[in-house]
Amino acid sequence: MRGAAYRVGVIHPDIAPLSFLLGTWRGQGRGDYPTIEGFDYLEEVVFSPMPKPVLAYQQKTRRAGTDEPLHAESGYVRLVDGAPELVICQPTGLVEAHAGTLEGTSISWRCDAVGATPSARSHRVGTVTREVAVDGDELRYTMSMAAVGQPLQQHLTAVLRRAEA
Amino acid sequence: MRGAAYRVGVIHPDIAPLSFLLGTWRGQGRGDYPTIEGFDYLEEVVFSPMPKPVLAYQQKTRRAGTDEPLHAESGYVRLVDGAPELVICQPTGLVEAHAGTLEGTSISWRCDAVGATPSARSHRVGTVTREVAVDGDELRYTMSMAAVGQPLQQHLTAVLRRAEA
Repeated sequence: MRGAAYRVGVIHPDIAPLSFLLGTWRGQGRGDYPTIEGFDYLEEVVFSPMPKPVLAYQQKTRRAGTDEPLHAESGYVRLVDGAPELVICQPTGLVEAHAGTLEGTSISWRCDAVGATPSARSHRVGTVTREVAVDGDELRYTMSMAAVGQPLQQHLTAVLRRAEA
Repeated sequence: MRGAAYRVGVIHPDIAPLSFLLGTWRGQGRGDYPTIEGFDYLEEVVFSPMPKPVLAYQQKTRRAGTDEPLHAESGYVRLVDGAPELVICQPTGLVEAHAGTLEGTSISWRCDAVGATPSARSHRVGTVTREVAVDGDELRYTMSMAAVGQPLQQHLTAVLRRAEA
């Protein structure tokens, strides 16, 4: 936990239990789903402190090999009575409001009833889960979803490293 | 429209009709609602281009006089068949997915059924409307909402100026 400890001082004390997320993370991931061709991607994730007890979250991916921009999303993490909550917006017109549980430096988030703009309703997603685990300067996550008539299953997984402060 | 015209080249052509939003906007606003004491605030809004035909949106406010941080939100604007759509996340645990209409440099957005994390459900909002009008380097908006048992009515209004590029 060397990577996280020295950042605790810069964030609001009420959200210090989530300081292990802070920083800029880069690495590689893999996407799969029964309805698409699998793909490899490069990712950058940033968790940054806010004046209030909240972390801002920003993420973007590019296709491995070609650097073509793929996905982006942004949102916030809050901590309420020890429970981490996550809200996310996506440029594709989807929004997610997650409930979560925290165990050490691992978080499980789950969102039902994802919101969508009118043009995004046809690819509206049912349940989404996001599992994040940090070990020192390594962050691993999996994102699962039930979408386009498929049952809940893994869609994305990645391993990221925290960039030097 | 001098302020907007010279920025058209930097954004994806499919979202050029929204180029009048681009830039950093600063100014002052006023908040009122039957259930709270009215307040004045300072605001900064940024609309920035993305690699895809989307604008990223970020906003923050401070209390006028004291500079105390108040609100923040972030999201994206997309344009689908001429209709501007807006998704927004708030650190308070709320998410919004708006449908919209565009007339010249004015946008009307409306969102029903705002999403919320578990701890935010008690202050979940019913309908939210956001009216934005840009005239050259001046942006005016009003935000109305139906919340805490009150009918839909104006909550926020502000006048912002585009900062020099």
